[in-house]
Formats: sequence, C-alpha cells, structure tokens
Amino acid sequence: MITGSAKIKVRFAETDAMGVVYHANYLPWLECARLDLLKNAGISYEEIMAQGFHLPVVEVGVNYKSSARFNDEVEIRATIKSRPLVKTRIDYEVFARGKLLATAHTTHVFVNAEGIPVKPLRDFVEKLSKDFAK
Amino acid sequence: MITGSAKIKVRFAETDAMGVVYHANYLPWLECARLDLLKNAGISYEEIMAQGFHLPVVEVGVNYKSSARFNDEVEIRATIKSRPLVKTRIDYEVFARGKLLATAHTTHVFVNAEGIPVKPLRDFVEKLSKDFAK
Amino acid sequence: MITGSAKIKVRFAETDAMGVVYHANYLPWLECARLDLLKNAGISYEEIMAQGFHLPVVEVGVNYKSSARFNDEVEIRATIKSRPLVKTRIDYEVFARGKLLATAHTTHVFVNAEGIPVKPLRDFVEKLSKDFAK
Amino acid sequence: MITGSAKIKVRFAETDAMGVVYHANYLPWLECARLDLLKNAGISYEEIMAQGFHLPVVEVGVNYKSSARFNDEVEIRATIKSRPLVKTRIDYEVFARGKLLATAHTTHVFVNAEGIPVKPLRDFVEKLSKDFAK
Repeated sequence: MITGSAKIKVRFAETDAMGVVYHANYLPWLECARLDLLKNAGISYEEIMAQGFHLPVVEVGVNYKSSARFNDEVEIRATIKSRPLVKTRIDYEVFARGKLLATAHTTHVFVNAEGIPVKPLRDFVEKLSKDFAK
Repeated sequence: MITGSAKIKVRFAETDAMGVVYHANYLPWLECARLDLLKNAGISYEEIMAQGFHLPVVEVGVNYKSSARFNDEVEIRATIKSRPLVKTRIDYEVFARGKLLATAHTTHVFVNAEGIPVKPLRDFVEKLSKDFAK
Repeated sequence: MITGSAKIKVRFAETDAMGVVYHANYLPWLECARLDLLKNAGISYEEIMAQGFHLPVVEVGVNYKSSARFNDEVEIRATIKSRPLVKTRIDYEVFARGKLLATAHTTHVFVNAEGIPVKPLRDFVEKLSKDFAK
Repeated sequence: MITGSAKIKVRFAETDAMGVVYHANYLPWLECARLDLLKNAGISYEEIMAQGFHLPVVEVGVNYKSSARFNDEVEIRATIKSRPLVKTRIDYEVFARGKLLATAHTTHVFVNAEGIPVKPLRDFVEKLSKDFAK
C-alpha cells in the first residue's frame, strides 16, 4: 500500500481564539503528507507542475476528534486505498500526543494550465495503481 | 428556513501558485455566512463565547466545482436544513461570477472552556429549531 | 493626496490563541486598502497582472498599538505620501472601535513574469504622481 | 550570542498567484526561529503562557530580497543583538537555495492575560541578557 507521512510542529499562527488549531489549518498539513505519498510512489508534484498540470482538491472531508494545540508535534499519515481513475482519493489520519486528532480525505483531478479538467497523466496513474489488482 | 449569507472579495493572500483560491481558504468564508445565519436566528456567537462556550467545527466537507479568483466578489449562503440535536449541521453554497463554485457543510457541537463537548445551550437549540416540526 | 480604504470584519480564522488577531493577518488587510488606493488613482491591479507584471511587497513595517478582536469592524486607510520612483511606498493606518490599532507601510517594485525587477509602468507612475510637484 | 533557527519546507498553501510565497507568510516562519532562540536561552514560551503572559509582536519589519518558492527548504536564523529592556528585539535572516531571501526584525513586550503591557519577567530578561555587558 502506498503511504506517505509528514511531521509538523504546530505554529502559533495556526491557533485561534479557542486556544487550539483553527480547523481550516489542518488542510495544508494533509498536503504535506500527500506530497510525501506522491514522492514515495515516484511522483514529483513539481514535475507535474512543470508539465503544465495541477492536481487540485475537488473534494475534502475532515472529521475532527480532538484538538491540536500550539507546539504539538503532529504526524499526518496519507494512504491511497483505491486505484486512481479520473479521480484520485487519498485518506489521512492526523495524530498528536498519542491520539488520533482527525481523519480526512481529499479527492483530486488533473487540470491543465487553464484549469480545465483533463485525463490524469498515464505515468501518474500507473505509479499509484501498482498495488491494486486490475 | 433560517439562512445567512456573506459577501467577500477575494484577497490576493487567498490565492495560491495555481492562480486561484487555495482550497482551505474557503473554510473561513463559510464561517462568515454561518455567523450571519446565527445572527438571523437571534444568536450572537460573541455571547456564546462570553458564556464560556465555543461551537467548533467537528466535521467539514467541501465539493469544489469551479475556482474562485483574485478580486472575485464571492457570495456564501448558509442554510440550516435539519433540527439541531447534539450536533448542528449547516449547509453552504459558494457563488461567484454567476456560478456555483462549491457546496459545503459543517457540523458543530458545543464545547466548554476546557474544550469538553457539552449539551448545546437550550436557547441556541430553540432558536434554530423554530422552523422544524417536532 | 491619493488615498484608499477598506473595511473588513475580523474573521475567527484571523485570531490566535492570544485571543486577538495574529499579527501577520494585518498584512492582507493592508492589501485591501492598497488596491482601493490604486483603483482611486485609476489603476487596476488586474490589468497590471494581465500585462505580465506584479507589484510585490519588497518591504513591510508594522507598528501594533492595540489589538484587533474577533468581529471587529476594521478600517484600513492607505495613503501615498511621496512621488513613486523605482520604488513606491504606501502608508497605512488601521482603526477599530474608534482606536488606531496599527500604523504600517509597504514598499513595492515592479517585477516581470519571471520575477525580475523592472522599471515601473509609465502610466502607473504618472497616475500616482499627479499630486506631487516635480 | 543567543541564536535560534528553524527549517521549514514551503507549503503550497503559502504561495500566492504570483507563484511565490505570499509576503505575510514569512512572519509565522520568524516565529519558529524565535521560539528556538528562546528555547536555546532556557525559556519556554509555553511556560510564559502558563504564567498568564504573552509576548506579542509590537513591531515587525521585513525586507524581501528574493522569493521563496513551493517546496523550498527554508532556514530562518534568529539572533538577539541587544540587551532586552522593556522591549525585546530579535533579528532574523531567511535563507533558501543558498540565498538570503529576507532580513527581518520583531520587537516584543510582555502583556498580561488582559493584554495590558507589563514589565517583562525578570527570569526572561536575565536569560536573554547574559551575553551583554551591563
């Protein structure tokens, strides 16, 4: 199974007046783990960009179970659980202080430089599909 | 039906290197419309806070259909479609340039000053429930 | 004197665990007033971008005197106090609750699509210079 | 001389439609290096907070020389160059790809839980003053 992970330290900038991390600020963290997952599959997001494509988030869902706090060491784990087709779905778990803080998923499509959805690059699909039976 | 709305102008700060608004930056916009919905129901979030409570997002989901761009005039509409129980769900639509850019929902619970989930304030539930049959 | 202003309502997302607005979050507000100043001078930032240029911040300075809080109605006023040369300097005052919260300035240069500094567009300089003796 | 440093990897979320890091997003990076400087001096920001104090930024200045880009490995170095008095000033240098991207400084005061400026904690001043002649 292709996975990726990232460790980040919570910045004061990421907290809000509730004293904990503002919910939207988990989304950039997911991206850190997602890029690692792609790298582990042999895919460089910078190369995708250099070829004139992007891989925007077309759907995101997050379930918050416990709060991240200032200075927490947060680990985000990303997994791809199904063969990518037109859309690619990635699942995430966010941990800190030995606790699962949140689960999440994102769904992605390829877009060209004009932002128009296009078929995913064949190489991208193949590299992410190698663990899935056809 | 209780609704709320907010109009915002996209800030350059909200864009990313894809040239459009970064997906996480829609979440604070939802909050603007949510606060208006609460206000329209006679609920002040500042009073909730003054009483020692918060109403964090415990779940968020967003479907992105089209991109928001720098300087866009974005309108966010919030609706409460079901009677709030322990959880309160709010649905959103995000528009710009005459197009639906995204749909979203958030789910909320009450927490006390320690961040522990508590029963929602009775007044809060009543005000948001008045349009729903018991 | 060419001026511009913007009114924004403080978002919960802009606060931090100190209970007030995080200091970095004033910078996008300055931009709102700056764009209004340019518009008042007959300059569209979108046209500058369409011609392949940007006007990045090469220097920023902020003095924080009092805190902005969640839900504050903040007004930002921008003024250009000196004739733009290679660099253009804009000064700002940030107000809320009848108080001056902060003073700030930004300095800008023109860059081309590769991010290389270039001479400012003549039209830009002329429009911003009309109030200054040669 | 008391110094601190932090290494961060530029997040896509930190870029803007100019294709580089948005200028305001350097400020949270400074904070990462500042916290390391405090730690190196034997000061825990979390303890300061636990005692009911904060150390807000009352002044910030940044000079941007070159742009940070997506995925850059950025190093931020913080130095305290003068004995802290009522105000504490910290200076920064931001590097990536072997280049100095920016220089910056922040000035801080102590505030109590109500946000009122107070005398800095004696222990804080002593720890940061040990390298400076009286």
